[in-house]
Amino acid sequence: MPETGYLALTASTRALIDAQLRTRIDSGEALEIAREIDILVKRLLESSSTEPLGVAFPHPGRPLRNDHGNAVVGVRNAIAPPVATVWERERCWAEFTLGASYEGPPGYVHGGVCALILDQVLGEGAAAAGYPGMTAGLTIRFHRPTPLGRLRAEAELHERDGRKAHVNGHILDPDGRVTVSAHGVYVMPRHLQESDRARHAHG
Amino acid sequence: MPETGYLALTASTRALIDAQLRTRIDSGEALEIAREIDILVKRLLESSSTEPLGVAFPHPGRPLRNDHGNAVVGVRNAIAPPVATVWERERCWAEFTLGASYEGPPGYVHGGVCALILDQVLGEGAAAAGYPGMTAGLTIRFHRPTPLGRLRAEAELHERDGRKAHVNGHILDPDGRVTVSAHGVYVMPRHLQESDRARHAHG
Repeated sequence: MPETGYLALTASTRALIDAQLRTRIDSGEALEIAREIDILVKRLLESSSTEPLGVAFPHPGRPLRNDHGNAVVGVRNAIAPPVATVWERERCWAEFTLGASYEGPPGYVHGGVCALILDQVLGEGAAAAGYPGMTAGLTIRFHRPTPLGRLRAEAELHERDGRKAHVNGHILDPDGRVTVSAHGVYVMPRHLQESDRARHAHG
Repeated sequence: MPETGYLALTASTRALIDAQLRTRIDSGEALEIAREIDILVKRLLESSSTEPLGVAFPHPGRPLRNDHGNAVVGVRNAIAPPVATVWERERCWAEFTLGASYEGPPGYVHGGVCALILDQVLGEGAAAAGYPGMTAGLTIRFHRPTPLGRLRAEAELHERDGRKAHVNGHILDPDGRVTVSAHGVYVMPRHLQESDRARHAHG
């Protein structure tokens, strides 16, 4: 887990993303605040990596997990809600809140944001079932608009097929209705499958 | 188009999102900067709307277009890259840059971010062909990893089917290779179809 100061920095940036979208202050004051943000950006970049976080801090042996910088679950990534996933056997679920910055149609979550979150949760469902891997295909059906606010996503392994895992999942609104459902296929990289075999063989 | 001060505010917030992710300053200084951001957030919220931007500033007669707050194309939304789309007949395309905050696997764009952007670009492809509407279904195939950096997305109407438009699209890497392809179905709301008919009938 990153240090406290970094987590606070990301939390404050998330609050800023929301506030700068909903503010009604006058344009002149908005410009003043922009200049103050620019000064903070300069301070942050005085010492910085040119690489994205997943490259800068890879997880040894688990190259596909990037829980610092990931766009959905990354605790250091301000565009991630973040979604805190829970793994249980061959399932993954998460409860999370999407505010104004995840909007598509007025008042509703962007359909593509639903796809983004489902890709991650289904992918972790595959990983929970022993298939950490890249997305090969994703089929999404939109049943009704997904309201901004508190939501739940669930995913479960459907079928094993060689190095592939087929996973089903959905997003539920606060009334427990499925708003979006998804089927995903995740492929485990060969080297992970081999190290997995080695682990089972040797320990 | 929003006023200059607001656009500067969003641009500075985007720079902050990237800088706070890549910074290597010490945790204590990160905490200090977090506190300074908190003060700016308070100033922004002194006058603010509780509603997301699409609800606060709807486009009359085009309720599904939300180019201020939209999570992909919103010029006021700091989590949007933003993607600036171009409409041509029954096509839509866009060139855009995805930095560290859009990462999934280390060094690559999050598969779900590809889905997010394709949903928007395909949806606008449908709109360009006269079918502004909600996503009903989206099928995505991942052919190879999408590198972070400069990318291009394209979408084109494939078929008309009553109130539905079938649209095909893809993302291209800098070498012009398709990394992700998509097929989407977009459904025009009944009231838009009727107003469209009325427009054709009356003028």
